[in-house]
Amino acid sequence: MSLITTILGRPLATSEAGDQRIGPAAGVPTFGLDALSSAAYGPEAALTVLLPLGAAGLTYILPITTAIVVLLGIVYVSYRQTIAAYPNGGGSYTVARENLGTSASLLAAAALMTDYVLNVAVGISAGVGALISAVPALQPYTLILCLVILIMLTFVNMRGIGEAGKLFMLPTCAFIVSLCALVAWGMFATISSGGHPHPVISPAHLGKATEAVGVWVLLRAFASGCTAMTGVEAVSNGVQAFREPVVPAARRTLTIIIVILMVLLIGIAYLANAYQIGATEPGTSNYQSVLSQLIGAVAGRGIFYWVSITSILLVLCLSANTSFADFPRLCRAVAEDGYLPGSFTSQGRRLVYSEGIWVLAILSGVLLLVFDGVTDRLIPLFAVGAFLAFTLSQSGMVAHWRKSQERGARASMAVNGLGAIATGVTVVVVAVVKFMAGAWIVVLLVPALVALMLAVGRHYQRIERETAAPGNLKLENLHEPIVIVPIIEWSTIAENALRFAMTLSREIEVLHIESEDSPHSLTKIWPARVEEPAREAQQAVPQLTVLKSPYRFVVQPIIDHVLEVERKNPDRTIAVLLPELVERQWYQYFLHNQRARILAARLLAQGTHHIVIVNVPWYLRERH
Amino acid sequence: MSLITTILGRPLATSEAGDQRIGPAAGVPTFGLDALSSAAYGPEAALTVLLPLGAAGLTYILPITTAIVVLLGIVYVSYRQTIAAYPNGGGSYTVARENLGTSASLLAAAALMTDYVLNVAVGISAGVGALISAVPALQPYTLILCLVILIMLTFVNMRGIGEAGKLFMLPTCAFIVSLCALVAWGMFATISSGGHPHPVISPAHLGKATEAVGVWVLLRAFASGCTAMTGVEAVSNGVQAFREPVVPAARRTLTIIIVILMVLLIGIAYLANAYQIGATEPGTSNYQSVLSQLIGAVAGRGIFYWVSITSILLVLCLSANTSFADFPRLCRAVAEDGYLPGSFTSQGRRLVYSEGIWVLAILSGVLLLVFDGVTDRLIPLFAVGAFLAFTLSQSGMVAHWRKSQERGARASMAVNGLGAIATGVTVVVVAVVKFMAGAWIVVLLVPALVALMLAVGRHYQRIERETAAPGNLKLENLHEPIVIVPIIEWSTIAENALRFAMTLSREIEVLHIESEDSPHSLTKIWPARVEEPAREAQQAVPQLTVLKSPYRFVVQPIIDHVLEVERKNPDRTIAVLLPELVERQWYQYFLHNQRARILAARLLAQGTHHIVIVNVPWYLRERH
Repeated sequence: MSLITTILGRPLATSEAGDQRIGPAAGVPTFGLDALSSAAYGPEAALTVLLPLGAAGLTYILPITTAIVVLLGIVYVSYRQTIAAYPNGGGSYTVARENLGTSASLLAAAALMTDYVLNVAVGISAGVGALISAVPALQPYTLILCLVILIMLTFVNMRGIGEAGKLFMLPTCAFIVSLCALVAWGMFATISSGGHPHPVISPAHLGKATEAVGVWVLLRAFASGCTAMTGVEAVSNGVQAFREPVVPAARRTLTIIIVILMVLLIGIAYLANAYQIGATEPGTSNYQSVLSQLIGAVAGRGIFYWVSITSILLVLCLSANTSFADFPRLCRAVAEDGYLPGSFTSQGRRLVYSEGIWVLAILSGVLLLVFDGVTDRLIPLFAVGAFLAFTLSQSGMVAHWRKSQERGARASMAVNGLGAIATGVTVVVVAVVKFMAGAWIVVLLVPALVALMLAVGRHYQRIERETAAPGNLKLENLHEPIVIVPIIEWSTIAENALRFAMTLSREIEVLHIESEDSPHSLTKIWPARVEEPAREAQQAVPQLTVLKSPYRFVVQPIIDHVLEVERKNPDRTIAVLLPELVERQWYQYFLHNQRARILAARLLAQGTHHIVIVNVPWYLRERH
Repeated sequence: MSLITTILGRPLATSEAGDQRIGPAAGVPTFGLDALSSAAYGPEAALTVLLPLGAAGLTYILPITTAIVVLLGIVYVSYRQTIAAYPNGGGSYTVARENLGTSASLLAAAALMTDYVLNVAVGISAGVGALISAVPALQPYTLILCLVILIMLTFVNMRGIGEAGKLFMLPTCAFIVSLCALVAWGMFATISSGGHPHPVISPAHLGKATEAVGVWVLLRAFASGCTAMTGVEAVSNGVQAFREPVVPAARRTLTIIIVILMVLLIGIAYLANAYQIGATEPGTSNYQSVLSQLIGAVAGRGIFYWVSITSILLVLCLSANTSFADFPRLCRAVAEDGYLPGSFTSQGRRLVYSEGIWVLAILSGVLLLVFDGVTDRLIPLFAVGAFLAFTLSQSGMVAHWRKSQERGARASMAVNGLGAIATGVTVVVVAVVKFMAGAWIVVLLVPALVALMLAVGRHYQRIERETAAPGNLKLENLHEPIVIVPIIEWSTIAENALRFAMTLSREIEVLHIESEDSPHSLTKIWPARVEEPAREAQQAVPQLTVLKSPYRFVVQPIIDHVLEVERKNPDRTIAVLLPELVERQWYQYFLHNQRARILAARLLAQGTHHIVIVNVPWYLRERH
């Protein structure tokens, strides 16, 4: 108990929930790292697609990034409204459920869940990948490093939502400050040099164009750049994690995240063009990330370079934390509606939804193990889920405003309508462009998840129908049970069970399985040991039934007999009493046959609700 | 069920035990393969130790083998007597128990068990090793081949003691016939050529002597050659596997095995000397086994060579079968005396002691896995155990004859006394000579096993003391139980349990854990739903107890409450009724919390025998 307390912290009372809530300062590291870290790979992803265009490709990066930032702006406005409209959290899932119906909401949930799991695996392995390109000696430990970070994130999040925020505040600050400083410094140098700054360290030479500009390559660059938008959903999902009043706190957090992200995206695109920095071929020996080139060009390789690079690396690793904050909340929302197992709704000792955290850790751990910690191939799977959720959320908000009587509802509807169209077009573009590269997995997986959740929902509805609202306690037709006691030999364990049986009913049947090796052992002593004392005490006399078992089976003959008694007495309850010697120490498990446990499990599986199972334990005296 | 029947055969009735018994023809392959296969490696082991002596070493192989054969003769005579004296089987263990006491018998059992497990691992990997030196392409599959043979042996033996004997009769015959033919052929050639036969294919050249003859090297050669004697114990352990009358059948089997083994050992030693065949350095590229050289020298590389080599290879693999025949019987004998878990005594569906077979398969499988199928390093561990068992068995027989009034008892005592001294000296020689090479493991392991079995014995004796012989059923002080029913919400599941509770007792306490999120949900409906109907029906009114759980724990507060009720009512039985929705399908397991099961398990572990646990199941209606 004390070990668990050391690792996870003391249990928190339900009434302490308020103390666990966070403000915007902890909110940005908790919910924002997924979105912010995109600044490190979104522009790079777009520039990599533009590689075949050579230096000419750089002229397109600013328009493409502008398109992405506009889309981001639309999505931002929409989620601000969502936060206010649904302060209990839930994001796309809740919005879709309230306005578009169950199927649409489960579609949004499945898409987001897929994305959250991918985000953990991809985020951690991207961070570890960056670390390894800085310190190649760590290469053989890739998988171990990934798993260590995963376990660390899991436990930090098990300690409560506030812990992760506090712990990750410093690297987040370092990341934001250094990248904003980079943008400002680079802008100043560009403007003061009349648009043609001189790089401190020359970036990699851009290759010759091997391809002409076309719509397809620009679309692909746009689709790749859109990975920068994953994680925007996060805050709206976790509104209830914020301090009261929740809406302004959540909105402020979202604004901080989005504004910084926009500044970084535009700034990096502008500077890449000004300094003539393109992507380098990944996987080759002269690969260098765009940000590394850019910082070198603007500031040289001094302290600033290393502080920035370190903070980028940390934020990449920790971007997985957004999933840990949101995935359990999303699962809880779905589980509360009955489409996922109910255990997702229960809060653990630290008031977090523990089951969601474990499931996320296990699923992403499996992904890391399967891909050996190198999840490059998972990146194309990304973004489809996020944009599908955006589209459903925007469409849901359109429906929401249609019903609304609020002032400005029409204007809001127009914004969300525009957003729905833009993100809807994007999801089609992204899915088509990345289909062969792996997006087809998501296209298959998401509907499968929806089908699974619908099946779970049907199961719970069936239970609800069959068990709910029994009305008043019915007391007709109460009979004392028929008691059946299987006994191997006459011992104090058996006597204890038989004594208890006599308190329950006057109809007691003792079952004895007779092997051919030792016949009649119980039958012989039965009259003297049991029947006479019972008659003398003027109690009902237990009846002895001996079953022959030519094949030495013990469990099945007892089950068959019990089921037969049940068939013959359809209106009676059968209580099967199992005398059992219980081991206090685990290692004693091997010393006794586990027939009572096996019998209980199989009777429960094969029985009806007329058959109840009674464990009558016997313990050895404690030694002194 | 039908799959199991296909693999293991139909269940056998206890009354069919007689049909499963075997005669000498099946007895030799069942119990003799361990002993017979030693002819293939015993002489080789001795010759390998003599390598440094060069050609001069060969002159010592015949005297050393003669010493081993004399020892074998003494042990044989002793075991013949053991079979007659203890026709229920048990070998060294039984003899030691009857005549030397518990500790000595457990020492013999531990030594034999160690040897049996080693024999499986070493036998299989020696056979696979021989196969691989014939077909080097199989090298990468060493471990898989070993495990496949292990699994095959396990299942053949699970099918019953007769199956293995029938199945292995052919390779055993081929082995015996071809090696006896080899000896006869070689003898004839040697004698007809005046003692200097001309080899058909010249054996490997013997190196120059690098060492002078000394007592130490001869002792080591003797100790290594003694591995040829492992497996002699087997028949005496399995007397009850033979057809009635068991004693002559078992004795005949033992005689056949020992006579053939003696002929082969002496014959091989004589021919090795005559043909000037020594061992070759193992692990080098010009390694060739002694038998392969010998067959080549006597008969050339024709059909005879390949038939003999194949049968040797098969018999090596199958020598593990002796362990499968004996280990479970030994465990049963020990378990019947209460020094191993009782489950070792129960006969499975095919009348074999299944648990012993599984344990042997698992232990030797682990050895094979740990050593990657190459168990050369285990060979030195061998023989210590066997000779320890021989010594104890001989000493036991000495004690047996001392008490005996039979005619010839004094002569028998003399034979066994000689045997005890000879095998006792041998065990010291083997242990000392092989100590550093690994025998120290056995020297530590065997006493540890003895200690474990003594601890098991004490545990069973304690249970026996505390539970046995309760006399007549005592019926004073029978009260109806206090019934406690934990209920989460008012549902048909809860109603079903409460109805059953009302048939058991008038004292019913319903426990409700209240979370701070949804207070008073059960309290509000309680009077109308339960109290009034009970009062109207003139039944005892169940009492509702609400427990607050600020930390959202559910199981622990219930256990604490039950234990408190038990403390307050020391003379009453507390029945804890657990209403439970039972899943018919395994995949529904994840859809419901398993609190009832967890609660039951923890109550059993922490409770006393005043607390009984009642599972009241509820099932969903079957779908049509």
